[in-house]
Amino acid sequence: MPKISLKGLQMPESPIRKLVPYAEIAKKKGHNVYHLNIGQPDIKTPQVALDAVKNANIEVLEYSHSAGFDSYREKLSSYYKNQNLPIDKQDIIITTGGSEALLFALGSTMDSDDEVIIPEPFYANYNGFAVASGVKVVPVISSIETGFALPPIEDFEKLITSKTKAILICNPGNPTGYLYSEDEINQLAKIVKKHDLFLIADEVYREFTYDGFKHNSIMTVDGLENHAIMIDSVSKRFSMCGARIGCIVSKNREVMTAAMKFAQARLSPPTYAQIASEAALDTPQSYFDEVITEYKERRDILIAELNKIEGVQVATPKGAFYCIAKLPIKDANNFAQWLLETYDLDGETIMVAPAAGFYSSPNVGLDEVRIAYVLKKEALVRSVEILKEALIAYNKL
Amino acid sequence: MPKISLKGLQMPESPIRKLVPYAEIAKKKGHNVYHLNIGQPDIKTPQVALDAVKNANIEVLEYSHSAGFDSYREKLSSYYKNQNLPIDKQDIIITTGGSEALLFALGSTMDSDDEVIIPEPFYANYNGFAVASGVKVVPVISSIETGFALPPIEDFEKLITSKTKAILICNPGNPTGYLYSEDEINQLAKIVKKHDLFLIADEVYREFTYDGFKHNSIMTVDGLENHAIMIDSVSKRFSMCGARIGCIVSKNREVMTAAMKFAQARLSPPTYAQIASEAALDTPQSYFDEVITEYKERRDILIAELNKIEGVQVATPKGAFYCIAKLPIKDANNFAQWLLETYDLDGETIMVAPAAGFYSSPNVGLDEVRIAYVLKKEALVRSVEILKEALIAYNKL
Repeated sequence: MPKISLKGLQMPESPIRKLVPYAEIAKKKGHNVYHLNIGQPDIKTPQVALDAVKNANIEVLEYSHSAGFDSYREKLSSYYKNQNLPIDKQDIIITTGGSEALLFALGSTMDSDDEVIIPEPFYANYNGFAVASGVKVVPVISSIETGFALPPIEDFEKLITSKTKAILICNPGNPTGYLYSEDEINQLAKIVKKHDLFLIADEVYREFTYDGFKHNSIMTVDGLENHAIMIDSVSKRFSMCGARIGCIVSKNREVMTAAMKFAQARLSPPTYAQIASEAALDTPQSYFDEVITEYKERRDILIAELNKIEGVQVATPKGAFYCIAKLPIKDANNFAQWLLETYDLDGETIMVAPAAGFYSSPNVGLDEVRIAYVLKKEALVRSVEILKEALIAYNKL
Repeated sequence: MPKISLKGLQMPESPIRKLVPYAEIAKKKGHNVYHLNIGQPDIKTPQVALDAVKNANIEVLEYSHSAGFDSYREKLSSYYKNQNLPIDKQDIIITTGGSEALLFALGSTMDSDDEVIIPEPFYANYNGFAVASGVKVVPVISSIETGFALPPIEDFEKLITSKTKAILICNPGNPTGYLYSEDEINQLAKIVKKHDLFLIADEVYREFTYDGFKHNSIMTVDGLENHAIMIDSVSKRFSMCGARIGCIVSKNREVMTAAMKFAQARLSPPTYAQIASEAALDTPQSYFDEVITEYKERRDILIAELNKIEGVQVATPKGAFYCIAKLPIKDANNFAQWLLETYDLDGETIMVAPAAGFYSSPNVGLDEVRIAYVLKKEALVRSVEILKEALIAYNKL
């Protein structure tokens, strides 16, 4: 029998997927499971996007241009400019989700065995894209004690080798909810310029910031034009994860020329989803105001309730819709599995994402979980109640 | 300024894309251009697929399962079984086009510097996927003299090294239209079993066979279960290239486990397009009968007309909707560019794909072009008329 590739063996399994069989067990028992583990928002997709697809008059569902609809790129450029991001149409290639934009970014800037430095904990799929691209992830640790702020820039300096090609950040962060300050972005800009590296920023949660905090895009930093590569997506902004539309953005022409060749090889991003994504740009501001208010209220209630549990430490997220909570347990993997396999509080339980899967360093974050606040407030309150009782029961085992 | 990757530099540009600026010139002159260069059919997408999307009641456009809708995989398995392909739901992962299926196949079976043997001329984007995956393409040449039949199996044998992991075929072939015989498929099966290799078959044109010739899928060969990986797509079958839905199919559980990890990293294939693709499976047989009849008539008229031109040699395709024509010129690249930039016959010209881009070996197929018969019959007749006159004019230069 022919052997599969090392890559195929090394591709990480999602930290959440491992729990799916246990969620099945909980469901078979008839237990109601609150899903705090996923980033699939319950927010409705803007009607204007859904209607555009319904009303599209298609006879032949054709390929689009490999860079995406010209009209969509034009309109997206205007959207960015309205947000004070100086992004022109030619700086944008539409991709199949932020996922593909990341693959294009890694492929265009890194070869086999090159290194990318990423503050951890980080979005677990970065590991997968790195393995798929033959690239090595070099983690630099951030901690719950500082609310997952940017690690000291000396920590980055120490890790830079001749193989280092880029620093990758997620801002605001999944799984931390951390929002980088202007000063932190400037520190990163300085170090990538000093060492001639790329700075790749996954900014898919850009619009989700709270408490008056402002998002600082790498696209607004003067002198960073040839270093900055932005990853974006419609998935969270318009609650249309299933569209699979994102984009890679850069002012570096060589990067865009290379990314375009990757784009041409796969022909085009999906046509229906581009119709929806282009129309979504007409979503009224009131939609976002409501969504942000809703997420802020969810965050506030979630963090307030978590803080009431003895032994639980949580960093208040300033953006996105995740937080990392440190629990009074030793092994969150085991705890998360037990919650599904064994535990229930009056027929209900919760599913959380063990945070170890978001660290690249071994044996870090073993007592942490990621909680996504993508459920309604009452469900979040009930979920934390279950967590509280479960921790008591688990620690008595 | 940071340097882009070698990969980014090595990614090939599509042989067609290079001509696009010259097509713009032709258009600016007001010339009508017949596009014989592309695989975008003019056939209408089945109404049942378009209606399914129009009538879908979506409130939140959610991620699907990473392997695709369960219901779609189930129905697709039935579709295959009706075609006598013994493919179960668990053997299928839905992908974003055949393109992604190929990337998953290469990633799951090959590491950096591993080799894949491909009969050339082959679909040019295989080169791009190979570079993206860090894999080396080893071409084995087939020729117009044999109608692009499978090269002698000894030619494959000679190329197999310890780095060889797979043989990749396209059946029926793009760009050749060649349909492998049962005997040829069996020869390939024998050699991959002997050397413990994978046999990857791109069968996206499976339904397009003519003159009573039957398609021989690698999925029907006894004892090949652990070697066979099939690539499929809805793009051509249902004339829905813009959907970006395909699938990777294998009975090798290790391959599918690895492919599933690649699938999980990119979350899910596009949701709207899956709705269309699932519904498309209800397309009545009459649709295919009409489409195949139409393509057969187009092929017959195209080949007949081409054969009338002195010095033109063409291999009659048995499947798909392409043919390779050998022209009485030295450099088809130059000729194709000249057709757009300089030539016109009463205000009209043609765009063809120079075949050199479909060969991995240098300086092969320089006098060949690929012609796609995706235009109406009258347009094909007129196109060949233009080609005939253009050849006379070009050879007088």
